[in-house]
Amino acid sequence: MPTIFTKIINGEIPCYKIAEDSDNFAFLDINPNSKGHTLCVPKKEVDKILDLDEASYLSLMTFSRKVGKAIESAVSCKRVGMTVIGLEVPHVHVHLIPLHSMKNATFQHKESMTAKEFEMVAEKIRSFIK
Amino acid sequence: MPTIFTKIINGEIPCYKIAEDSDNFAFLDINPNSKGHTLCVPKKEVDKILDLDEASYLSLMTFSRKVGKAIESAVSCKRVGMTVIGLEVPHVHVHLIPLHSMKNATFQHKESMTAKEFEMVAEKIRSFIK
Repeated sequence: MPTIFTKIINGEIPCYKIAEDSDNFAFLDINPNSKGHTLCVPKKEVDKILDLDEASYLSLMTFSRKVGKAIESAVSCKRVGMTVIGLEVPHVHVHLIPLHSMKNATFQHKESMTAKEFEMVAEKIRSFIK
Repeated sequence: MPTIFTKIINGEIPCYKIAEDSDNFAFLDINPNSKGHTLCVPKKEVDKILDLDEASYLSLMTFSRKVGKAIESAVSCKRVGMTVIGLEVPHVHVHLIPLHSMKNATFQHKESMTAKEFEMVAEKIRSFIK
């Protein structure tokens, strides 16, 4: 059975899309640690990041850097953090999180956002993708 | 003034060293989220990960993958997580954290370890570095 991220990539589940290349896909986390929190996912379904072959791993990391830079330009924050955990969805995902304080990095405080706010922040981040 | 990580890399502050290449250095975090928690640091002093030039960033990520795989072989855990925050020390560092549960990823629960335990886990991880 495809993972929830594969369903998002295939358009079966809607998302606030940020960017896509041949191997990777980025969209807003709908339960964000902070406004602008984005997930970068390889199109290939692999559970653990260290199980990606080196080329796929470096492709994902290059893609995540590009998306992270766009977030840093679009969203006011101290910096963009990167986190890979993966205990919930068995499909590699890099969290890119605008950090204002340590609170945004702990995954224990969530930001409530309206659909309109998701749309606006997604559009702004997309405008900075190079 | 050099960062605490530069002092560690230069041997001015002792550490439980895991690995080193021409650009990067890895050692155990002495305030670990879990046993085996390791930091991978570029030798170049740069504050934010997204400010590393692409080659240095990919070098750090390749090095972190190699160290992460050694940790996954050496330490019993569900998987190794990767986190970059950087709000405390202004010198890029990738946290590689053996995850048993979400608790290990929040940075709010720390593991107490003796010097002997640090030495033993460092030696075991080093034995799996390829």
